[in-house]
Amino acid sequence: MDFASLLGLVLGLVLIVGAMLEQAGGEIAGLAEFVSLSSLMIVLGGTIAATAIGFRINEILRVFTLVRFVITKPKFFLPDLAKSLIEAAEISRKGPAELEKHIPNIDHPFIRDGLTFIVNGIKYDDLKAILYRREQFRRTRETHESDLMKTLGTFSPAFGMIGTLIGLIFMLNNMGAGGDAAAGIGPAMGIALITTFYGSLFSSLIFNPFSEKLKLRNNENSQASQLMITGILLIWQKKHPLDVKDMLTSYVEPKDRLTLFKDDE
Amino acid sequence: MDFASLLGLVLGLVLIVGAMLEQAGGEIAGLAEFVSLSSLMIVLGGTIAATAIGFRINEILRVFTLVRFVITKPKFFLPDLAKSLIEAAEISRKGPAELEKHIPNIDHPFIRDGLTFIVNGIKYDDLKAILYRREQFRRTRETHESDLMKTLGTFSPAFGMIGTLIGLIFMLNNMGAGGDAAAGIGPAMGIALITTFYGSLFSSLIFNPFSEKLKLRNNENSQASQLMITGILLIWQKKHPLDVKDMLTSYVEPKDRLTLFKDDE
Amino acid sequence: MDFASLLGLVLGLVLIVGAMLEQAGGEIAGLAEFVSLSSLMIVLGGTIAATAIGFRINEILRVFTLVRFVITKPKFFLPDLAKSLIEAAEISRKGPAELEKHIPNIDHPFIRDGLTFIVNGIKYDDLKAILYRREQFRRTRETHESDLMKTLGTFSPAFGMIGTLIGLIFMLNNMGAGGDAAAGIGPAMGIALITTFYGSLFSSLIFNPFSEKLKLRNNENSQASQLMITGILLIWQKKHPLDVKDMLTSYVEPKDRLTLFKDDE
Amino acid sequence: MDFASLLGLVLGLVLIVGAMLEQAGGEIAGLAEFVSLSSLMIVLGGTIAATAIGFRINEILRVFTLVRFVITKPKFFLPDLAKSLIEAAEISRKGPAELEKHIPNIDHPFIRDGLTFIVNGIKYDDLKAILYRREQFRRTRETHESDLMKTLGTFSPAFGMIGTLIGLIFMLNNMGAGGDAAAGIGPAMGIALITTFYGSLFSSLIFNPFSEKLKLRNNENSQASQLMITGILLIWQKKHPLDVKDMLTSYVEPKDRLTLFKDDE
Amino acid sequence: MDFASLLGLVLGLVLIVGAMLEQAGGEIAGLAEFVSLSSLMIVLGGTIAATAIGFRINEILRVFTLVRFVITKPKFFLPDLAKSLIEAAEISRKGPAELEKHIPNIDHPFIRDGLTFIVNGIKYDDLKAILYRREQFRRTRETHESDLMKTLGTFSPAFGMIGTLIGLIFMLNNMGAGGDAAAGIGPAMGIALITTFYGSLFSSLIFNPFSEKLKLRNNENSQASQLMITGILLIWQKKHPLDVKDMLTSYVEPKDRLTLFKDDE
Repeated sequence: MDFASLLGLVLGLVLIVGAMLEQAGGEIAGLAEFVSLSSLMIVLGGTIAATAIGFRINEILRVFTLVRFVITKPKFFLPDLAKSLIEAAEISRKGPAELEKHIPNIDHPFIRDGLTFIVNGIKYDDLKAILYRREQFRRTRETHESDLMKTLGTFSPAFGMIGTLIGLIFMLNNMGAGGDAAAGIGPAMGIALITTFYGSLFSSLIFNPFSEKLKLRNNENSQASQLMITGILLIWQKKHPLDVKDMLTSYVEPKDRLTLFKDDE
Repeated sequence: MDFASLLGLVLGLVLIVGAMLEQAGGEIAGLAEFVSLSSLMIVLGGTIAATAIGFRINEILRVFTLVRFVITKPKFFLPDLAKSLIEAAEISRKGPAELEKHIPNIDHPFIRDGLTFIVNGIKYDDLKAILYRREQFRRTRETHESDLMKTLGTFSPAFGMIGTLIGLIFMLNNMGAGGDAAAGIGPAMGIALITTFYGSLFSSLIFNPFSEKLKLRNNENSQASQLMITGILLIWQKKHPLDVKDMLTSYVEPKDRLTLFKDDE
Repeated sequence: MDFASLLGLVLGLVLIVGAMLEQAGGEIAGLAEFVSLSSLMIVLGGTIAATAIGFRINEILRVFTLVRFVITKPKFFLPDLAKSLIEAAEISRKGPAELEKHIPNIDHPFIRDGLTFIVNGIKYDDLKAILYRREQFRRTRETHESDLMKTLGTFSPAFGMIGTLIGLIFMLNNMGAGGDAAAGIGPAMGIALITTFYGSLFSSLIFNPFSEKLKLRNNENSQASQLMITGILLIWQKKHPLDVKDMLTSYVEPKDRLTLFKDDE
Repeated sequence: MDFASLLGLVLGLVLIVGAMLEQAGGEIAGLAEFVSLSSLMIVLGGTIAATAIGFRINEILRVFTLVRFVITKPKFFLPDLAKSLIEAAEISRKGPAELEKHIPNIDHPFIRDGLTFIVNGIKYDDLKAILYRREQFRRTRETHESDLMKTLGTFSPAFGMIGTLIGLIFMLNNMGAGGDAAAGIGPAMGIALITTFYGSLFSSLIFNPFSEKLKLRNNENSQASQLMITGILLIWQKKHPLDVKDMLTSYVEPKDRLTLFKDDE
Repeated sequence: MDFASLLGLVLGLVLIVGAMLEQAGGEIAGLAEFVSLSSLMIVLGGTIAATAIGFRINEILRVFTLVRFVITKPKFFLPDLAKSLIEAAEISRKGPAELEKHIPNIDHPFIRDGLTFIVNGIKYDDLKAILYRREQFRRTRETHESDLMKTLGTFSPAFGMIGTLIGLIFMLNNMGAGGDAAAGIGPAMGIALITTFYGSLFSSLIFNPFSEKLKLRNNENSQASQLMITGILLIWQKKHPLDVKDMLTSYVEPKDRLTLFKDDE
């Protein structure tokens, strides 16, 4: 659990709702003005319909399950991956049989699969091609997910504005009906604006930040994959563990390089 | 038929129209305010004229026939393509004559053409160049289609705004005519805004989502083509079917890899 | 002449003007409200001044001569280019003297120049470098033209808005003069908005669509050049005409491939 | 001096000011409404402050000295560069001593430096690396300049809007003070809008067009550098002047190729 | 300390506040209208919450410590780096022992690490791979920082607008309550607009300029790294110091090249 991020999220929401409460004179009932089922129907309906055309509906549903990533720490800690690969490099010098025995002890399936290929005697170019293609495939799939989220974030303010236009057109047409019309303009326009409010809030507080998060995760995974691919290929080449360490620690932040890997030498 | 996408589309439209009906006091007649032939003429006319300048008119017409893709499933299921190529790799080891006999059983013309080149004894570099060029040609053509759709989506809100400007200028000029002008402002402005409403709706509900869809299809086709090219080139090299399987399954999702290809080993 | 595009353009303009006429109560005189010399001066003046800073004035003038491309068909029909090159490949196998005699029969100067280099005994790498550089030069020049058009399309709405600001500031300052000011607000604001209308119309109906058109032409020329370069290099290599056909038809749409090249085999 | 560009610039400004004068009823005093020191302070102050954070202040000052490029012709005429290099290629065939004597006659320092390296007997790969790196360095530096100008063009309308918000907030708060407030709204809002007017005008008439100009110059210099690098490398290789001509004229427009280089053959 | 940038920043702020004071009639108390705790809560709360979703909260905190870069000079002076590397190249020709003794005298850790690898007898390809990977890692990390800043700059105006919508909806709903509502519209709308003002100011004066600054620093570091990598690799190859000088001075501005390196020859 990434409590710091969770804290930031909660803090931000408390600040917004607090400011709204203050403007409403401190009464929670005052916030009821911001609840509008028909506005929600237009924004969510439009966004779902437009995205269902551009993507597949089951993808949209699945993307919502990715919300959990907001409060999870990065999947990989790069120095751990590097250590795990350096260890495997040491063992692999004792022979393929030793390496094969070691494989089940490794946490990450990508490294396990790579070492299994090596134990089975794969050719270097084939190994390289397979590893890079899997990584490329993962990247394409995760980019697709953040694109979908970004699309939701693009359509929701657009439908917020469309909803406001609908409200305005109704209101303006009623103005011609005469009578005490002017008195009704204010609240009617307030209701029309709620749709814009929903569209902006969904976009700025949910869809766009999540799209950023998925992109961030994708980049983190990509860095981890590059480290793992480099390591696996070095093991195939039976490089000396010290050389493997020199190569892999270049993926690690300079300060981690000093604290985590100094003792090994 | 991709019923899930169709459902999402219908659900979205029902939500929007439902919200409009509610605002109209539940009467369908209330929606008549949103029907304006002159607004439609400006938005559609402007969008068609602008796009006819930038593209060719027959391309615009053809793009509308691509609407069917919204409710079709992806053209290719990658594991099926992989299996088909692995099977061909097995047969090709029995000799070119066997392979030639097998070709008519293959579903996809791209694979059929590739294997026919092999049976005819094409050189490796020529085969590679031809396959990549065909794929590049297909990609260029489909990118062109999604660009056209995106252009429609860019021009339609612009002409929506131009239409609203036309309406506003007429209205404002009439204001100077005096009399009970103020009473007419509301409805006149309502009518002017309908053009903006049309432009936004066409853009956000039709043109932009379709452009996304065409891009998505293009990417799916591209992945399939890459798998097929890799497979055909491996068959030319007479690689062992097990190696072909290792290479091609790297294009497949990890979970499909386990369920669909485990039994073959 | 590309009558379909011309038709689309005319149809679009008829729809817009028709809708305006309807709103003006059917009288052409009503459209006089949309003619404003001072608005035109601000929009055109600003756009010309800004673009004259960024580009050279003679380039701006020359770009307007490219308007004719809107109603012309693509310059090249790819299958014709392919056929012309396949024919040259056949002739070139009879010897350089035969090829030299054939050159004047070829329509396209780019192919003529390429074959002349071959007849003169140029080295392969030099030929390749020269052909690619010419193509790159053409691409840079045409990209420059569509960038210029796009710049016009970016500046014209900006000066439309600046003109409206000028009008608004005059109007608002006059409001303080008291008297029957309110009666004048409407028409004054109407006049101010005409500048925005001009800026948007120029941008959406002229500059941006033309920029798209020039980009499209650039891409079409680029595809043709790639086909021609591939063909000329294959002729240098004295490849068999059937191989040349296999290579060049990969630039052609699948359906043209079947109908136009089947009979040759 | 590029009189055509200067003419375009002057013409554009005359059109804008003329249109403003017409709206002001022909009196120059009417334009005084557009002079506002406090608006200028907000727009320029904000833009300078924001850009001083993002860049270094001496860079901002230096960029303004580049204004002179608007009315200068391109620095290089490509055919002249090509001719100068072809001449050097002829001379270099007589031996390095002749070439060394010829160097001081060459106008452009980049060519002079390149030939000096050759006379000093530099290795081919080193020469290539040095020339490309210098060109890359120049490109980076000039891109940096046009980015700075573009940043000015992005911040100035933003601070124009911020200034208008400041004016509006003052005005709206004063409205609550009662009295004959309504009469003051017009002029107060007019003043508030002047800041937006300044921000837009600076951006659209100065910063953005200049950014375009600097980009254009960068591209022109880049083309010239590519021609010069190609030429210098060919001279190192002691290629025949006729081959050098064939290679270098591919950088020249087809029509110049015919008129300027035909007589040499 | 980069006093020029600091001066620009201070000057800009003085101009803005001065203009505000002038509009407030010269009284500082008049600026109190621009202080609104609830507006600040909405803008900062929303921006923090949205960014905490997309990034990790500790990253957001850390980025604020980068503010110091605004008033620091560039970390590296390229000619100094070049001289330091040329000196090391001279020493390294005396043998690895001499080079090892020289390493502690070198300022920059990146050069020290590189030379230590050389003294330890690393292979050329390994050295190259390690140096490039470290540089790539640094670039990724710093790009991530400027992306975070840009995200803050994107979200803050969005929440400024959301806050204004909240204020407007409250205000419009209260209008329906009748009474002397009209008198309250002005100030209520003024308060609503303050949120937009905050959002724009944070974005245009803090987040976006800082994002530009971090990008600029990243590019400067990148140029320095390229120079250092080139130099270290040349030292591995035991190139002559004069050749090293020729290669490294191509990274230096032409005028520095003449003044700083002429005396060495």
